[in-house]
Amino acid sequence: MKENKIPYKTYLDESEIPTKWYNVRADMKNKPAPLLNPGTHQPMKAEELAPVFCEELIAQELNNTDAYIDIPQEIQDFYKMYRPSPLIRAYFLEDALGTPAKIYYKFEGNNTSGSHKLNSAIAQAYYAKKQGLKGVTTETGAGQWGTALSMACSYFGLDCKVFMVKVSYEQKPFRREVMRTYGASVTPSPSMTTEIGKKILSEFPGTTGSLGCAISEAVEVATTNEGYRYVLGSVLNQVLLHQSIIGLETKTALDKLGEKADIIIGCAGGGSNLGGLIAPFMGQKLRGEADYRIIAVEPASCPSFTRGKYAYDFCDTGMVCPLAKMYTLGSGFIPSANHAGGLRYHGMSSILSQLYADGLMEATSVEQTSVFEAAEQFARVEGILPAPESSHAIRVAIDEALKCKETGEEKTIVFGLTGTGYFDMVAYEKYNDGEMSDYIPTDEEIAQSLANLPVVEE
Amino acid sequence: MKENKIPYKTYLDESEIPTKWYNVRADMKNKPAPLLNPGTHQPMKAEELAPVFCEELIAQELNNTDAYIDIPQEIQDFYKMYRPSPLIRAYFLEDALGTPAKIYYKFEGNNTSGSHKLNSAIAQAYYAKKQGLKGVTTETGAGQWGTALSMACSYFGLDCKVFMVKVSYEQKPFRREVMRTYGASVTPSPSMTTEIGKKILSEFPGTTGSLGCAISEAVEVATTNEGYRYVLGSVLNQVLLHQSIIGLETKTALDKLGEKADIIIGCAGGGSNLGGLIAPFMGQKLRGEADYRIIAVEPASCPSFTRGKYAYDFCDTGMVCPLAKMYTLGSGFIPSANHAGGLRYHGMSSILSQLYADGLMEATSVEQTSVFEAAEQFARVEGILPAPESSHAIRVAIDEALKCKETGEEKTIVFGLTGTGYFDMVAYEKYNDGEMSDYIPTDEEIAQSLANLPVVEE
Repeated sequence: MKENKIPYKTYLDESEIPTKWYNVRADMKNKPAPLLNPGTHQPMKAEELAPVFCEELIAQELNNTDAYIDIPQEIQDFYKMYRPSPLIRAYFLEDALGTPAKIYYKFEGNNTSGSHKLNSAIAQAYYAKKQGLKGVTTETGAGQWGTALSMACSYFGLDCKVFMVKVSYEQKPFRREVMRTYGASVTPSPSMTTEIGKKILSEFPGTTGSLGCAISEAVEVATTNEGYRYVLGSVLNQVLLHQSIIGLETKTALDKLGEKADIIIGCAGGGSNLGGLIAPFMGQKLRGEADYRIIAVEPASCPSFTRGKYAYDFCDTGMVCPLAKMYTLGSGFIPSANHAGGLRYHGMSSILSQLYADGLMEATSVEQTSVFEAAEQFARVEGILPAPESSHAIRVAIDEALKCKETGEEKTIVFGLTGTGYFDMVAYEKYNDGEMSDYIPTDEEIAQSLANLPVVEE
Repeated sequence: MKENKIPYKTYLDESEIPTKWYNVRADMKNKPAPLLNPGTHQPMKAEELAPVFCEELIAQELNNTDAYIDIPQEIQDFYKMYRPSPLIRAYFLEDALGTPAKIYYKFEGNNTSGSHKLNSAIAQAYYAKKQGLKGVTTETGAGQWGTALSMACSYFGLDCKVFMVKVSYEQKPFRREVMRTYGASVTPSPSMTTEIGKKILSEFPGTTGSLGCAISEAVEVATTNEGYRYVLGSVLNQVLLHQSIIGLETKTALDKLGEKADIIIGCAGGGSNLGGLIAPFMGQKLRGEADYRIIAVEPASCPSFTRGKYAYDFCDTGMVCPLAKMYTLGSGFIPSANHAGGLRYHGMSSILSQLYADGLMEATSVEQTSVFEAAEQFARVEGILPAPESSHAIRVAIDEALKCKETGEEKTIVFGLTGTGYFDMVAYEKYNDGEMSDYIPTDEEIAQSLANLPVVEE
């Protein structure tokens, strides 16, 4: 049935790297809800965002109408360092599963940041440089985003200040060193270098930090230092725009192979990878040109799509950022301590939230022991050690392929393999030692967290 | 001058992956000296090697005449998982250096083992499987070879027992976990699981182990367990044969680009990468068809080519393996404790040793702080975090490119980028903290180590 096993890997030519990003909002009938000023509850204007974000990025953030946005030549040049990324036919996995399904994955891990995050990091660094800034600030948890931003800033000669959640800083010293090798300064958060950090440390002296706190510190430094702005690696519309390059390349490669996807699967934390992967396919769906089953996969321990509420909420724990309408578990929600890897954001991209609310995509949640089981199975046959985040998509891709085995259907399954797990070996060790457990929050826990949503009249 | 910057990366088509390995020995007028029985000092026969090595690998080890050896289909299939590897034009680095030289590098790090080691690991695992063995044993220091072998054994369903130098086992727990994820058993060496391990532990209770000791344990387990053989990741002729795929792909890609290398550079520890990279080019040189400058780069702390003696020596510290004629620092030589990364073998491939003795290639040694300086410079512009080993080649490639800048020559420089440094962040941290130092052994130290060479009449 699967005789001609060529090619395993489809690399587009460098001349086929997209020269425009695709903005799915242009094709959405129901646009994503606007960011609101946390004080007035009025839509944020560009000038209100300007002290925090770079000007051109704000324009992209607010642009709901242009379907295509030119990728500046400097960013196209940088993309040639590691793009096009391969679309890989999972022949080895198909054989291991004995499925009639065809499985493809778009692999974004072949760059030193280890993930797709570099696609947006280089864009954000470029616009910061173009604006004449000295540098940017950000937060990082697992470290993929911080690494990507360090690489991008090093390329453009920008200063890069990363606030890394203290527990990650201590548990992942190697991530920190990669960032330092690219010239970034990495500060464990909360720190004594910011007012908010000092405040938190005096209130909670032993705290190991959180993403919400690190965001607050990064924003404070950006807004109180001349020539700095704050940048973010997921959730925002601009980030999904930049990540559309994943989907555009995937679609071009599938078209060249004469393949039409039936199911498209991606892991979802803040939505940057999934939003990028599905963008052009969703565009076809919105325009009525083609149909696809699109599945967001989230951790059962942080189930914003499947158990959250579609409502306006704070983007950060410190409540200094604008309000966003999204599927949320409440800005105070913190996944169980036994949760390994990323995908731990309490909310979700506003674009994906609207698409999900409109029934244009599905969502499912998976437990982490079954995720690592899929990760190990995949690694052993496909030869790539996947990131825990990416392995959520692997889990569901395998499950869908096994359903095809039962029904005999030859479906074409495409999933996003966002990155590699080289810096996640502590989690793999737990799994290898049989010490990994699952945690599903109770209805009471989620209800309690959702009780603190801001009251917004729409 | 360098207007048309396309392509950055040359990927051959999967149909262009070599189907035969190239055996440079066939074209060598002076063949590499044979392995000798350590007791009789007579050339080792196949049947003497059979208790330790797999049969077909012994045939390859002793084959000095066939220029091409077929790559079995099963290995060709596996190669499609991660090959062809890209030949990358270092446009970013050239710009940063302001050199008129063209710099290319063959990047072998885009697989989970993180290096070229997988090219030989899959071949050795295949022949073990074909022989009906249950499993293989090996030693690993830095961990690249152990990881590669784990991946290969997992693919063919072979048991894989890795003896990992105890100090590495403890300092690199993540390497260990990758191997376990691929189903290998990893034992810190010396261990209480072997007679030699028990003996060493009783004599030196606090020892942190050495490669020589780990080899002895792995050989003991292979020879005392039904259905097991021992495999090795470098030095041997068979390994260089398998690694010729690096050079064959490199040459095909350069030919397609219409480029002719002037200088070919590779790091050299036991010689597996360098021997593989240069194989077809050296073949041309041996046949008088083309000329190339070929440079082996070794660490100043372990300078077997540049300061060793060309003589028969023990391959292992335990002196149980055959004697090999090679450039050696003496089997008791141990690089200074401040040496980071691999390339710490006391000897060198017999093939490369003969080629060097015949004046067909050059060798140079570099100090590790200058190696890490080159590594960081490379990472920041080319976006790949290189392994410390590979960075030895980067150092010399940069130096040669800077010479071109002085002279204005447009030389074409090709070097081997053997792998990535994700598991070497402790060394990068030392460098980032300014705590890395150099050590060059004194003449007395080397003379003392060489005083114990076995006396062999040739």
